[in-house]
This record gives sequence, C-alpha cells and structure tokens, in this order.
Amino acid sequence: MTTAAPDHPRIPGARYTERLERLATLVGERGLAAALIGVGPDLDYLTGYRAMPLERLTMLAVVAGEAPVLVVPRLEEPAARAGLRTDVEIATWMETDDPHGLVAGLVERARGRASATIAVSDRLWSVHLLRLQGATPGARWVSATEALRELRMVKDADEIELLRLAGAAADRVVDQIASGRLIGRTEEDVAREVRTRLLAEGHELAEFAIVASGPNSASPHHEASDRVIQAGEPIVLDIGGALGGYGSDTTRTLWVTGGDDANGPTEEFRHLFAVLLAAQVAATAAVRPGIAAEAVDRTARDIIDGEGYGENFFHRTGHGIGLEGHEEPYLVAGNGESLAEGMAFSVEPGIYLPGRYGARIEDIVVCGPDGPVILNNEPRELRVVAG
Amino acid sequence: MTTAAPDHPRIPGARYTERLERLATLVGERGLAAALIGVGPDLDYLTGYRAMPLERLTMLAVVAGEAPVLVVPRLEEPAARAGLRTDVEIATWMETDDPHGLVAGLVERARGRASATIAVSDRLWSVHLLRLQGATPGARWVSATEALRELRMVKDADEIELLRLAGAAADRVVDQIASGRLIGRTEEDVAREVRTRLLAEGHELAEFAIVASGPNSASPHHEASDRVIQAGEPIVLDIGGALGGYGSDTTRTLWVTGGDDANGPTEEFRHLFAVLLAAQVAATAAVRPGIAAEAVDRTARDIIDGEGYGENFFHRTGHGIGLEGHEEPYLVAGNGESLAEGMAFSVEPGIYLPGRYGARIEDIVVCGPDGPVILNNEPRELRVVAG
Repeated sequence: MTTAAPDHPRIPGARYTERLERLATLVGERGLAAALIGVGPDLDYLTGYRAMPLERLTMLAVVAGEAPVLVVPRLEEPAARAGLRTDVEIATWMETDDPHGLVAGLVERARGRASATIAVSDRLWSVHLLRLQGATPGARWVSATEALRELRMVKDADEIELLRLAGAAADRVVDQIASGRLIGRTEEDVAREVRTRLLAEGHELAEFAIVASGPNSASPHHEASDRVIQAGEPIVLDIGGALGGYGSDTTRTLWVTGGDDANGPTEEFRHLFAVLLAAQVAATAAVRPGIAAEAVDRTARDIIDGEGYGENFFHRTGHGIGLEGHEEPYLVAGNGESLAEGMAFSVEPGIYLPGRYGARIEDIVVCGPDGPVILNNEPRELRVVAG
Repeated sequence: MTTAAPDHPRIPGARYTERLERLATLVGERGLAAALIGVGPDLDYLTGYRAMPLERLTMLAVVAGEAPVLVVPRLEEPAARAGLRTDVEIATWMETDDPHGLVAGLVERARGRASATIAVSDRLWSVHLLRLQGATPGARWVSATEALRELRMVKDADEIELLRLAGAAADRVVDQIASGRLIGRTEEDVAREVRTRLLAEGHELAEFAIVASGPNSASPHHEASDRVIQAGEPIVLDIGGALGGYGSDTTRTLWVTGGDDANGPTEEFRHLFAVLLAAQVAATAAVRPGIAAEAVDRTARDIIDGEGYGENFFHRTGHGIGLEGHEEPYLVAGNGESLAEGMAFSVEPGIYLPGRYGARIEDIVVCGPDGPVILNNEPRELRVVAG
C-alpha cells in the first residue's frame, strides 16, 4: 500500500513560546485569574501539543503571575513531552487522583492578585467544565476565545503556507473524484473514496466528505447516504480535513451526464449556478483589509437576493479557518469586525431549492494586503462530467 | 480505487424511541428540569442523529413534562430530518438568532414543575455550556451521564454485534500490518497505512493509530512520529475507530527482526511480555456478572506487581466502549460498580520501562451471562515478524 509522506513545514518552536507569552500578557491585562486550555486547537496553537480529547483531563493552566503548567495524565506524560514544542512545566496525575482539584489548586495561587474570573477554552468538554466549576466556588467563567481570538485570527506566513498546502491537496482530491466513476455508486461509497484520497494526499485527518446528489444537494450539511447517484443530476462535493494541523474546506458542484448530452444541466440549474458563481466571485473580490466581515456576506447576498433566490440562501457566507475548521471571523450579518491582513476564511454562498436540487461554491480566501488571496484553484464553474 | 461497502446491521428505529422514553422517565424520576444533549454519542444513542460538533448549536432538549425537541441550525434541518431515526419535533434557528436563548426558553416551560437542576451531555463544548448557563440564571448543572449511564452501559444484541464487527475489522488490519513491511518506514507512515486500511475494512472513522516503536513503546499514548522503525525492536500497535458508530480498540505488540534471528526479542522482553500476557488473560477470565470493575483491574495488577513491574503499569486496566471509545464502566481502582451482562470494555494492561521499551495487550471484552466474551482474535502472544 502506497502512502504519501508528509512534506510540509512546521511552525517554529520559538513561535509557540511567543504565543504563550502573549496569552500570559492578555491574562494579566484583562485581570483574569487564569486561562484554562483543554485539549484541542487552542492547546495546539499555544504549545504544539496535539492529543485526543478524552475523559482524562489534560489542561494547560496559564495562571496570572505564574509560569504556565500543563496538567497531564501520568500515562500521557511521555507523549506530552514529545509533543510540546515549547518549554512548559508538566504536572502529572495518577488514575485515582482528582485532576480538576489539581487545576483548581493552581488557580488558587492567583487569589488576591486577580479577579475571580477564569477563561476556559471553547472546546473543553462540559464534563470537565462542570467539575472545574465545582472545584472553584464563586468563580466567574468566560470563553478564552475572548482573549485568544486576537492571536489566532491573524495567520502568519507559516500558517498560510499550511492552509495553502491543505487546500491544494483537497483540490487534487476534487479533481480525482470529478474525473472518476460516480453514476451507480452510493454517496457513502464516494465519501469513503474522498476520505481515503485525502489521507493519500497528505492529510492526517479526513474530517468530512459531503457527497450530496440529486435532491440531497439541496441540504447544505447533507450526510453521505446510501442513495445511488444517477445520470442527469448535480452532486455537491464539500470536503476537507487537516494537513499539518491546518484545515482544508472546499466545495465544488458537479453535474453527471453519463456521457449523454441529453442528461445535461437544466436551464434553471445553469441560471441558478451562474447567479451563485457571480455572488461567490464578487464576495471574494470584496475581501480587503478594513472591510467589515458582514459586508462580504452582504455582497454575496445582494446578488442572490436580486435574482430572487434570497430565501434559498439560508446560511452565512463563510467562516474563519485555521487549526479549526470553523473559527473566527465569521462572515455573517451582524459581524462588524474589520477584516485584517492574514485573516483566513471560507467564501461559500449556496442556493438550495428544497426537494429538488442545490449548489454551493467554496474557496478558502486569505485577506492579503491589497485584496483576496485565493487558496483553491479553478475551475469553480459547474463541472459537467460523464461520471 | 476499491472501497468496501458498509455491510452491518443498523439499530432498529423503535429502539431509539424506547431510549428517549426511558430518558424522559429518568428526567421525571430525578426531578430534573431538563436533560440537554449536544452533538455526540449521547445524541446518537437517543435519536440516531450523527452530526459534527460545531460552533452552531444542535441540541436535544428533553424537558420535564414536555415532548423532546431537537434544536438545529436551519441549514442542517434537512440533514437532521434525514438522520433522525425516531420521531422528534424539530425547532430551527437562523444564523442571526440566539439558539442558547431558544433552549433556555424550552427549559423555562418546566419551571414550577421541577427543580432548577439541568443535566447536560458530557461532550458538549464549554462555549455552549457557558452560554446556556448565562441564559438560565440560578440553575444548577449536572452531568447527563448520571442518568444516561444506566441506559448506555449495558449493550443490547445489536450493539454487541456492531462491536464484534468493528473488532474483527481492526483485527484484520493488525494482521495486514504485522505481515507487511515495517523496517525502514516511519511510524507516521505506518500509522497512515493503518488509517487507510481501517477505512477499507469498513470503518467510517479511523480515529487513532498508535505506532510506537523501540523506546517509544514505553509511552502508552505515543503519537506516531517520524522515527524510522529498525530491526530488533518492539512495536506497540494500538488502533481503532468506529464502524456503524461502534468503537474498535485493540492493541498487539510485535517484534521486528528483519528476518535475522539474532535480532529477536531479548530475554528480558520475553519475560516482561509473558507476565503481561498472564495478567491480561487472568483479568479477562475474571470478567463475570457481579464482579466489581476494580476487581478486574486488581487481578491484572496483582500479577504484574508480583513480578516486580508494579511501577511500570501506571494506567487503569480498561475502559467501557460503545458509541464512545472511552465510556463507563472504567476498570480502575476505586470503582466498585458491579459488572453486568452486556457491559463492554477493554482489558489492556501494559508494562513500560521508560526510555527502553514496553508492551501492551488489549482486547474488547463483553460481560456474558457466565463469563467473558472476547471480541478480538488470537494471537495475542508477542508476534515476532520479519517486518
């Protein structure tokens, strides 16, 4: 079995040290008692350590006025030492210890020097938050993203390179799928091929593979099913995962004919798709430093609304992407945040006619100094293929 | 590209209806205002609906005295309708709505009829719990597992069949890896092959692939690295994922010789492994209805302690498995819970000599009416292979 070797840059170790220092500064400036970071993208961002979220608590405690401490189960200590990309003190706990009490004890050190407000990473499981809350009576809890967003939203050159590589790998998989056999196969079968190919193209995680054929294409987050793909219908392919930790996420819409032109796209579908493409291109072109996130959404929505499809575009235009598939900034009405150079996000309007069919086009776009930098390749036009 | 078609039983739809009714009864009996279930294994268990956990809230609200309601983002409504295996009312929210306020409003209906205690699923992200807490001042929050464990710990025949199929698929992957080339490849490369093969053998999720060679085998949760595998060393292979939603998790220890007997296992390693195997077999044999979970752990630990390796076995003996890779019951000191027919869990002692090497053997075992039912196949002896 042939497998591709990973061939991508790594974030330099010194970068993690800087990030941790910046978080410690933010904890001080905001008068937090601590920022408590569970397993997940925030921990990866701050230390380089990637672990599976589990019922056993692993937690980075950045306590005001103290050096950061990583609390880990004893059996994961060697994995943590191997995974950490920066120098952090490790405190281990044994299977019959109380790790939540251990963390609460660390936070206690800040008492008197800071408020009783504790920030916690968004993805920490509730079972852990409830135990931490039980161990720190009287504390007020807030999302650590309120502080971390300042760091994580703007990507540096290494992060953008990883996003670019992830996007290029996903592009190759889309091309492979679009040029292969599709008719007569189930959506599930094609989705399995997508996942296998994402791994073969260097992804370490093949997180999602939306294969939405025929009427299922009207469901934006369709779960690949046992429906058999037929000639004369669209397929929305929305695929992604992670390469070097950074996300890919691209959507292309195909139409399969079985090689018979009589099974080509309907006039209606061609029109719908042309409107969608115009909206996606215009929204992408609107990206530049200083524009509000919601203005990009508005750009796509105005075009789609103007053609009478407003009711058929019932999701936001995009989401940030980086170590998480969905993260800030969100391109959505009501988000007045100004885009800045280095922010990375999807631009992915869609038009869905319930019970009939739909289409979506999605690229990952970085806000460059003068405008958009698109990380996915052409064509984004409707791909009419034999299938 | 050849991909295997899924060929496994599904849980009957009526089963979900029963489970939901049992949870509603438990909510009433325990005087809870509601059980709030986010995306994850609890939601899957209760409704059959599998979705990705996201920043957009999807939540089943089982409010005392009310019919259950599934709160979903508007764009996921068709996916939810397709994914639900039982009849549940759906309430949708649009991108600019406040879904946490919507759920709080549902819970409010129970006011006056129940206490202000709300149960929440363990894996719900903290960002959602904090918002729900903010929307329900004065409520007391507990883990929904306190109620759900009664349902989920004991598997029915369909669940056991899925665990058996998942285990058999993982066994085949272990055999394929053990009979292939290993020496000269990186752990990461082998781990990628494991993931690809798990998908090819019918898993929909290839969740983890521990490939721990040489000194790395002393790290129980080692993350596959760029270390190149060499002749004359052990490899701990701990792999798993999900098939039909149910977990696989098996560990076998290999020793690669490169075809030269002079590179065979050391006497010390053979002894260590013999002790480990005796402990694993004895712990498995101890499984029967009525025995305490901690007694199974004690059985393995006594044998390993008796040979002087007590300090080198620094994790519990096992964890429950089902829709989650790790779930109750845990085979750990201090857990006096009696095993019951239908409980499923790993039995996986390990012995680790830091900086040198280690070994682990893991099977999934179901507590049968008279003793253990082992879901992984032989051999579990040390596999000496050319590699």
